[in-house]
Amino acid sequence: MSDIPKKVHIREEGPREGFQIEPGPISTADKIALIDALSDTGVDHIQTVSFVNPKAVPGWADADAVVRGMKKKDGVEYTALWFNEQGLQRALAHQDKLHVTGALIGSASDVFCRKNLNRSIAEHTEVMRKQAASLVANAVPIRRVGVMAAFGCNYSGEVSVQQALEAAETGMSIAREAGARIEEITLADSMGWCTPARTERLVGAFRERWPEVELILHLHDTRGMGVASAHAALRMGVTSFDSTVAGLGGCPFAGRPGATGNIASEELVLLCHEMGIETGVDLEALIEVGRMAERLVGHPLPSTLLRSGSYQT
Amino acid sequence: MSDIPKKVHIREEGPREGFQIEPGPISTADKIALIDALSDTGVDHIQTVSFVNPKAVPGWADADAVVRGMKKKDGVEYTALWFNEQGLQRALAHQDKLHVTGALIGSASDVFCRKNLNRSIAEHTEVMRKQAASLVANAVPIRRVGVMAAFGCNYSGEVSVQQALEAAETGMSIAREAGARIEEITLADSMGWCTPARTERLVGAFRERWPEVELILHLHDTRGMGVASAHAALRMGVTSFDSTVAGLGGCPFAGRPGATGNIASEELVLLCHEMGIETGVDLEALIEVGRMAERLVGHPLPSTLLRSGSYQT
Repeated sequence: MSDIPKKVHIREEGPREGFQIEPGPISTADKIALIDALSDTGVDHIQTVSFVNPKAVPGWADADAVVRGMKKKDGVEYTALWFNEQGLQRALAHQDKLHVTGALIGSASDVFCRKNLNRSIAEHTEVMRKQAASLVANAVPIRRVGVMAAFGCNYSGEVSVQQALEAAETGMSIAREAGARIEEITLADSMGWCTPARTERLVGAFRERWPEVELILHLHDTRGMGVASAHAALRMGVTSFDSTVAGLGGCPFAGRPGATGNIASEELVLLCHEMGIETGVDLEALIEVGRMAERLVGHPLPSTLLRSGSYQT
Repeated sequence: MSDIPKKVHIREEGPREGFQIEPGPISTADKIALIDALSDTGVDHIQTVSFVNPKAVPGWADADAVVRGMKKKDGVEYTALWFNEQGLQRALAHQDKLHVTGALIGSASDVFCRKNLNRSIAEHTEVMRKQAASLVANAVPIRRVGVMAAFGCNYSGEVSVQQALEAAETGMSIAREAGARIEEITLADSMGWCTPARTERLVGAFRERWPEVELILHLHDTRGMGVASAHAALRMGVTSFDSTVAGLGGCPFAGRPGATGNIASEELVLLCHEMGIETGVDLEALIEVGRMAERLVGHPLPSTLLRSGSYQT
């Protein structure tokens, strides 16, 4: 039990994940209100918006306006997502509010890479090289490597630990060539294959390979194993998790309609607090924001804890 | 990791739990079809019906007809639930199909006892004495003690390990006076308070107090912690779990409308198989029965795995 950490970082991705996939329309003011409400819950990281082509993701056509409108609270790190040079430039224009660092995100499954990014792993590796060059040219530090489909793939089946390690190695090697020092690796369960056993295998192998790098788990609850997998990871001392309030979001390319996406932040917080792990988050406040998220999107969200409420009697 | 068991018993309670709470009406033939389908999945225990007052639980007015109609498959133990002498006599009339043993079920929370059974713990203790006498008079072996609200209570809040131990001690003591040897203790999370940490505390304390008795966990997923709690219990070597296919059921007295109930059998089976633990259950067959259960009740059921499907690509 001694590996259980004292403090865990909840990386809240509800706004970015949720508003990209919700059929909407959701007003700019409502998006800002959700981010501001999250800022008051005690989470120390919020991924706010996606700077993507409005034609591809209409839900984020107002990304610039959302960042302009949201309040920046001390002690909270606000980030954004982008995929190309244009998106990077939009993010850089908001450095007064956004923490802009670079990440090199690859895929452990070639089929998922094609479905999600419309290119093979080999083609995507070349794209990552260009991304790294662009980040260097813009003086943006490259700090993170990510592995999509690290736990398994709905299109091609099992993904081996070796495939996940290789995907990360590709990113690490491009980062090295670019003179960057990678501090974090995100293992993304893009299609909800995580289980406690898979989590233990992956975390163990990545720890052994890169003992100095912090692991971030991006777990999905698609098959009901998200919280149990987080439990396994916490027992191994993992201290950073992506999650979304109310379970907002889900991957549009996962190939399983109706499947839920990210683990719910409030369930992760309850799990941690019950294990005696600090998160800095006010659980009751976070549940209230989850209810607000349900009102904004206009339908029930996947979080189970949201329906039942916490232990308050 | 050495406490992880080789084999786990899935005690399927979907029919009994589900049909008592579903607004229905569900035909007798459909109830029989679900039980027969479950018999073919490889589960070795099915709780089939509830012999209760049809005025109180109209969904089980046809309990006798269901037992008469269902097929008895070799290797499967079929049980039923009852609460009084009349129910016991109905169960005894079906001993050709039902495995009839006695259980003494108490509550760790006085308020829940009043809400659920309309009497205090002290009053219920007297009822349990009468139940024990009736079981003895009918030559029904008393084999199990149960503790409702063992993990916490939506009405009165925290339930201490000590309260749960005391509730079990009451049952154990009545069993002793009746000359019975208790083989199993069920810890029931009646209102969905389980978390991995609470599970570890309870299992640890009960193991220490009654090392020779097998623990059965009846976990609810009301707050999203059901599967994670099962994971914690499996790591401690717990080998018996109550669960319901598709997550059928839920406690009508839990005081949280819309809250989900039991952990879904198929999620528990996936969790076990991924940990290398045998269940004897064909996961794909069980998922198909879950889909059948959704068709019978006519609305989506809580299981997350049911929506996504297993890892078959």
